[in-house]
Amino acid sequence: MGEEVVRNKKVVLRHYVTGFPKESDFEVVTGETVSLKVPEGSGAVLVKNLYLSCDPYMRGRMTKHEDPSYVFDFTLGSAIVGYGVVRVVHSGKPNIAEGDLFWGMTGWEEYTLIENPESLFKIKYNDLPLSYYTGLLGMPGFTADVGFHEICSPQKGEYVFVSAASGAVGQLVGQFAKLMGCYVVGSAGSDEKVELLKNKLGFEEAFNYKKETDLKAALKRYFPEGIDIYFENVGGAMLDAVLANMRMNGRIAACGMISQYNLEKPEGVHNLFYLTTKRIRMQGFLVSDHYHKYPEFEDRVAQYVREGKIFYLEDIAEGLESAPAALIGLFSGRNVGKQLVAVSRE
Amino acid sequence: MGEEVVRNKKVVLRHYVTGFPKESDFEVVTGETVSLKVPEGSGAVLVKNLYLSCDPYMRGRMTKHEDPSYVFDFTLGSAIVGYGVVRVVHSGKPNIAEGDLFWGMTGWEEYTLIENPESLFKIKYNDLPLSYYTGLLGMPGFTADVGFHEICSPQKGEYVFVSAASGAVGQLVGQFAKLMGCYVVGSAGSDEKVELLKNKLGFEEAFNYKKETDLKAALKRYFPEGIDIYFENVGGAMLDAVLANMRMNGRIAACGMISQYNLEKPEGVHNLFYLTTKRIRMQGFLVSDHYHKYPEFEDRVAQYVREGKIFYLEDIAEGLESAPAALIGLFSGRNVGKQLVAVSRE
Ligand SMILES: NC(=O)c1ccc[n+]([C@@H]2O[C@H](COP(=O)([O-])OP(=O)(O)OC[C@H]3O[C@@H](n4cnc5c(N)ncnc54)[C@H](OP(=O)(O)O)[C@@H]3O)[C@@H](O)[C@H]2O)c1
Ligand SMILES: NC(=O)c1ccc[n+]([C@@H]2O[C@H](COP(=O)([O-])OP(=O)(O)OC[C@H]3O[C@@H](n4cnc5c(N)ncnc54)[C@H](OP(=O)(O)O)[C@@H]3O)[C@@H](O)[C@H]2O)c1
Repeated sequence: MGEEVVRNKKVVLRHYVTGFPKESDFEVVTGETVSLKVPEGSGAVLVKNLYLSCDPYMRGRMTKHEDPSYVFDFTLGSAIVGYGVVRVVHSGKPNIAEGDLFWGMTGWEEYTLIENPESLFKIKYNDLPLSYYTGLLGMPGFTADVGFHEICSPQKGEYVFVSAASGAVGQLVGQFAKLMGCYVVGSAGSDEKVELLKNKLGFEEAFNYKKETDLKAALKRYFPEGIDIYFENVGGAMLDAVLANMRMNGRIAACGMISQYNLEKPEGVHNLFYLTTKRIRMQGFLVSDHYHKYPEFEDRVAQYVREGKIFYLEDIAEGLESAPAALIGLFSGRNVGKQLVAVSRE
Repeated sequence: MGEEVVRNKKVVLRHYVTGFPKESDFEVVTGETVSLKVPEGSGAVLVKNLYLSCDPYMRGRMTKHEDPSYVFDFTLGSAIVGYGVVRVVHSGKPNIAEGDLFWGMTGWEEYTLIENPESLFKIKYNDLPLSYYTGLLGMPGFTADVGFHEICSPQKGEYVFVSAASGAVGQLVGQFAKLMGCYVVGSAGSDEKVELLKNKLGFEEAFNYKKETDLKAALKRYFPEGIDIYFENVGGAMLDAVLANMRMNGRIAACGMISQYNLEKPEGVHNLFYLTTKRIRMQGFLVSDHYHKYPEFEDRVAQYVREGKIFYLEDIAEGLESAPAALIGLFSGRNVGKQLVAVSRE
């Protein structure tokens, strides 16, 4: 009986990128074939990719680094890699069966041979949309949870500011903060996003940072008493404006600085002496350090969704052909909510 | 019997300062008289000032602020205020007697009427040089203790970098780090200071930052494995170079940023995204939040000195006339060790 072999469409990076990535930096190719069985005796799994996650950190992988970065550079010509939701087609592991659903690192292609299935997370709840495992119940959602609850040390009644607030991480940070009894304001890059933040996601206030000529004054308007907690997603000028508006003993979770990812030299931040005079703690974190606590998060947040306590905005691009545009759209704010790509819905 | 009245020499700020302070921004005047008795029925104390402390934060008080700063602006024409070591000449408080020695906020003048003697710290050990209560056993020493032991969360064997390392705070941070079994490197602004750091203060290594054209490369030389703990005294370009050389899970105590205090607009710091990728905690603090823990510190560090475990460099200017030059000398690195002014040795 012959091995089943299929053509495998994939998204590849054509060359390393400087500055803002463009669609033409990528190519969707359907050349090679892949066997739908794992090699005899291997402990790999062969998966079908259902949903792929577009994440800002992937920008780092598009650059060629002389000194190794915190993430590896993409390999030119191979399917780019990222988080996704996958279904097992064939398994070389006794404890993994055909049809099992996982989320974790996979390839931007139709089928992927995953050599280290230990790195995957078994999907526990399929009463919820599977796509949530790229966002709410996946890496970005867990990032919001760890970043807010562990890094920000929030207290009821505190003033919380979130940038990139309608995105995959930000929309959850705001909702977690509301659930804790905090006062929450978000910034986003369009009036549509601002409306969603206020009317769908329960933020007290929101503003379109692109329309503000003086970010420091804007924050002063929304936080006359100052900011206790800043969940930092963007960096640069916004961080400077926030530092000037922080309260005593404030906390800043340095989750990401997307406004800097495409710059050859990051902008300068000038107001750091406020860290001293206002006794601020600014702390970076990477979600991957915390995955041992993921199972408790999955249970808790799935329950929140069922109870209608958490709402999640998704922006779904259909098909691998649309994947490059979806990915680079993160850097112009094209996405409204969590950006993902549906490769196959079955 | 008439009240004893004396002429009271004092140092005043002549006008608010922009940019680097100059000696001519100050004036030493001997005009007014002061009574050596506290007003009848008052709870004040009249003190003789023995030693005055020159501290970088005093630069902030030389500027006129529209929005209140974290410290009050100096009052033009009045004696400037700062930490000092004082002897009580006359007391309006039952629990304070003539001859008692204190350290705390006083005036830059010969005699000061202190209205709130509750704010003063009683000096416990006069077997040690009294001047130490402006430095080692005073505010800067306690700053080093709190900043290093509480904010940096040090572990034995960690790599520690201290800037302004030969100064009032820095020299102690290095010695505390050595006592904990850390590897310590300091930066300072002259070869003389570098020698002292290596040969007197027990730092493993030290370098003259003014002679380095590439601070990032210099730090890489001294910390091939990277920096676990940075005790930040200077800010600006040094902070950028440090961020690039930090290790995973590093800590930065934002004690001060003296290189920025005379600038109209602070320099930009570009490398903050390393906070995220290296999971760094950068935390500001003010020593004044911690004074309730001072008594334990005083006992512990006095004992270290008696046992020869701690050494302290002082730079003593003689007389109020030399006080303005001593104070502004902090910003050009004129001081070697803790800068103080001896107003009177009796
Ligand atoms: N530390 C970690 O482990 C970890 C994990 C996941 C994510 N992150 C970080 O978290 C942040 C948010 O990620 P996400 O997945 O939730 O992305 P996202 O918010 O869903 O998408 C990115 C959004 O960033 C905003 N943006 C893009 N360029 C900007 C600029 N120049 N200035 C200001 N905003 C800009 C856009 O929204 P607007 O329309 O509002 O501009 C865009 O929609 C990123 O910085 C990411 O790197 C960190
Ligand atoms: N957070 C708090 O509660 C607290 C309390 C006390 C002090 N502090 C801060 O701690 C730091 C050290 O204070 P200190 O009392 O120990 O002062 P210090 O080190 O005794 O004196 C200041 C020293 O700073 C260095 N310096 C001056 N301008 C500089 C520049 N542009 N770049 C680099 N170095 C420069 C000079 O030494 P070089 O010859 O090495 O350049 C100078 O000797 C200051 O930033 C101060 O504001 C904070």
